[in-house]
Amino acid sequence: MKCLTVELGERSYPIWIGPGVRQKLADLLQQAGIAPGRKLFVVTDQNIAPLYLEDTVQLLTEGGYAVHHFIVPAGEEAKSLAIYEQIMTEALTIGLDRKSAFLALGGGVVGDLTGFAAATYMRGVAFVQVPTTLLAHDSSVGGKVAVNHPLGKNIIGAFHQPKLVAYDTNALTTLPPREVASGFAEVIKHGLIWDASFVTWLEENADGLQAFDHELLQAALLRACSVKVAVVSQDEREQGLRAILNLGHTFGHAFEALTGYKGINHGEAVAIGMVAAARLAERLGLAENISERTVRVLRQYRLPVALPVPLDVDEMLDVMRRDKKGEGGKLVFVLPTAIGKVDIYKNIEEEPVRAVLAELYEGGEA
Amino acid sequence: MKCLTVELGERSYPIWIGPGVRQKLADLLQQAGIAPGRKLFVVTDQNIAPLYLEDTVQLLTEGGYAVHHFIVPAGEEAKSLAIYEQIMTEALTIGLDRKSAFLALGGGVVGDLTGFAAATYMRGVAFVQVPTTLLAHDSSVGGKVAVNHPLGKNIIGAFHQPKLVAYDTNALTTLPPREVASGFAEVIKHGLIWDASFVTWLEENADGLQAFDHELLQAALLRACSVKVAVVSQDEREQGLRAILNLGHTFGHAFEALTGYKGINHGEAVAIGMVAAARLAERLGLAENISERTVRVLRQYRLPVALPVPLDVDEMLDVMRRDKKGEGGKLVFVLPTAIGKVDIYKNIEEEPVRAVLAELYEGGEA
Ligand SMILES: NC(=O)c1ccc[n+]([C@@H]2O[C@H](COP(=O)([O-])OP(=O)(O)OC[C@H]3O[C@@H](n4cnc5c(N)ncnc54)[C@H](O)[C@@H]3O)[C@@H](O)[C@H]2O)c1
Ligand SMILES: NC(=O)c1ccc[n+]([C@@H]2O[C@H](COP(=O)([O-])OP(=O)(O)OC[C@H]3O[C@@H](n4cnc5c(N)ncnc54)[C@H](O)[C@@H]3O)[C@@H](O)[C@H]2O)c1
Ligand SMILES: [Zn+2]
Ligand SMILES: [Zn+2]
Repeated sequence: MKCLTVELGERSYPIWIGPGVRQKLADLLQQAGIAPGRKLFVVTDQNIAPLYLEDTVQLLTEGGYAVHHFIVPAGEEAKSLAIYEQIMTEALTIGLDRKSAFLALGGGVVGDLTGFAAATYMRGVAFVQVPTTLLAHDSSVGGKVAVNHPLGKNIIGAFHQPKLVAYDTNALTTLPPREVASGFAEVIKHGLIWDASFVTWLEENADGLQAFDHELLQAALLRACSVKVAVVSQDEREQGLRAILNLGHTFGHAFEALTGYKGINHGEAVAIGMVAAARLAERLGLAENISERTVRVLRQYRLPVALPVPLDVDEMLDVMRRDKKGEGGKLVFVLPTAIGKVDIYKNIEEEPVRAVLAELYEGGEA
Repeated sequence: MKCLTVELGERSYPIWIGPGVRQKLADLLQQAGIAPGRKLFVVTDQNIAPLYLEDTVQLLTEGGYAVHHFIVPAGEEAKSLAIYEQIMTEALTIGLDRKSAFLALGGGVVGDLTGFAAATYMRGVAFVQVPTTLLAHDSSVGGKVAVNHPLGKNIIGAFHQPKLVAYDTNALTTLPPREVASGFAEVIKHGLIWDASFVTWLEENADGLQAFDHELLQAALLRACSVKVAVVSQDEREQGLRAILNLGHTFGHAFEALTGYKGINHGEAVAIGMVAAARLAERLGLAENISERTVRVLRQYRLPVALPVPLDVDEMLDVMRRDKKGEGGKLVFVLPTAIGKVDIYKNIEEEPVRAVLAELYEGGEA
């Protein structure tokens, strides 16, 4: 069991990673200042509940906590104001107070939703992340919490750092293959934005990682989380540097939005988005020979590298202009300048973006 | 036109108070770092719109801002998740981005609601308070923003400091008498918790203030705001001291909740609550001879000092136990120890509270 620390002054917190971390959850909570006797509100989803809810509740109850739980539907649709309101109603009904803590047991959906509830319940209560997906190595670190609005993803949200992240790699073994791939998209992203040697390591260990070799998995998550931790510790509120974490995301959010957050999941959208970003960078003369290697490593992890359905270019551009990163309707992108290096570009012209998007449907690929 | 500053490091901001402040709004915004050209989203209510919306929009447009507006229903009911969602939808539809600012033109309801929207739109955008009620001298300062939940007032919220507060005392002249009285409840509260000489000054100038003598009004608001500023600058997130601002509020919230946020407005509820707090302090032997003077000064400002309708004591206790200030179902109160001085008491026994509540209905008064 390994520990990283997100350094944010009085908001600093540990990230525990390893097989069996969940068994020590009660101790870890206590260490993080959440004393036994407090009320804990465990939020999870319908897929995760049958697998990990009962024993989690039992472990926490044995640790002396007064544990309540709430099960939301599985999938991106749960990140809505309607479900958020249900969580608030339940929290009030069971009498959670300012000293209570919300605990997200799940992937990025449960984490973002529960975190936003914790951020706004009585103007903010303690929050704990117990990630159960590979992708959640990303979503559980850094304090971005949100729900979606029909007009935009993650548009309603806050910054609310957890008190601790307890990441049990054992819980990853039950993940459906598509979610495994989706999670690797963000792992690869952490290499592509920061550390070329990590990309090489991911290329070399693709088989072992996908076979869930626990040593390799723990090493990959530590390395990927370290990148996120380094970035977030320098720029908690995305005043500058933190934006690099959005490689592939401006594109990706448009793909997700236009398929109703259903057709393409988050990691898949980011994968296709990173391919688009690499091609755009090449087209703009910012980089050379990076899209090919980007495509290759994503394919090694069974990720899509083209749109599985044709999407309207104008609609994609519209969504991208409305993106949170945008200002004054301009197009802003994080683009690679080499493998392991990115930069932020404001005021990108529309034409090259159009050209890249027009070639992104897999039915249209050579 | 006078200026106070809330000192909160990089979140510091000015409070401008005086007749005609609104005329200088565009300049003040620019001074506060909100550059012309930006989108401004003015939120106001149905009563205020016909009085002050058109000229406010015009002043800001002339100042070079791209101004949009949204009108919510008047009254506490507007502080709901449903109206909040409407604001978010509108904000997205008009294309507000991270550099846009939300501007609350109104009383505490519009301020709290708009502030919560600003706090959570794209994880937080700039927010400006243009108070139009006397009570809003309190609500517009300190960064507490919230909406209500059917099970509790202000339960869903955040801390989000404004970039500036522009308080035009001219706008107060159109306030209905009941709202004037309600506003004076919080002015008096700021004296009762901090400054006995301010209470004496309020007693001496009750007539002039209620006749809207502009010099007196500006002086009263400056003094009341100064108390709030001093407290908030020391304890932004209510870790300790800030709780004293809740004098009368634990009681008051119960009165508001049990009359459906309709029968008794916020200031009235706080007034009756401050009487209850004084009586409770006397009953517990914490203070002597303060309830009589508390009652007298509140009456001078035409405020209620007893419940106009009988409320169930058990139901009041239930709501108070659920209050945000409560922990583990215990009763926590801010109680006066003298005029101008209060302290925070946790673990208050139920019996004396019951006794005070039982005598609070005006039909039951001697
Ligand atoms: N806050 C951030 O910084 C951040 C960063 C990246 C992504 N995100 C968000 O994360 C979300 C995607 O996260 P996700 O990919 O984890 O999605 P998810 O939470 O929906 O989980 C994916 C699916 O796997 C199921 N599942 C989860 N754990 C399981 C397990 N151990 N065994 C079997 N099934 C399991 C879930 O029920 C769900 O059906 C998106 O909403 C995205 O916006 C947030
Ligand atoms: N955030 C805080 O720190 C804080 C502090 C105190 C109170 N509050 C909140 O403030 C709210 C009460 O504020 P309020 O008393 O200002 O209520 P309000 O905003 O509802 O205004 C009272 C009434 O006066 C009308 N009005 C407002 N300005 C007017 C004007 N200039 N001329 C004519 N009519 C006008 C409004 O339409 C409304 O009908 C409560 O919801 C309370 O919880 C918040
Ligand atoms: Zn992502
Ligand atoms: Zn108040």
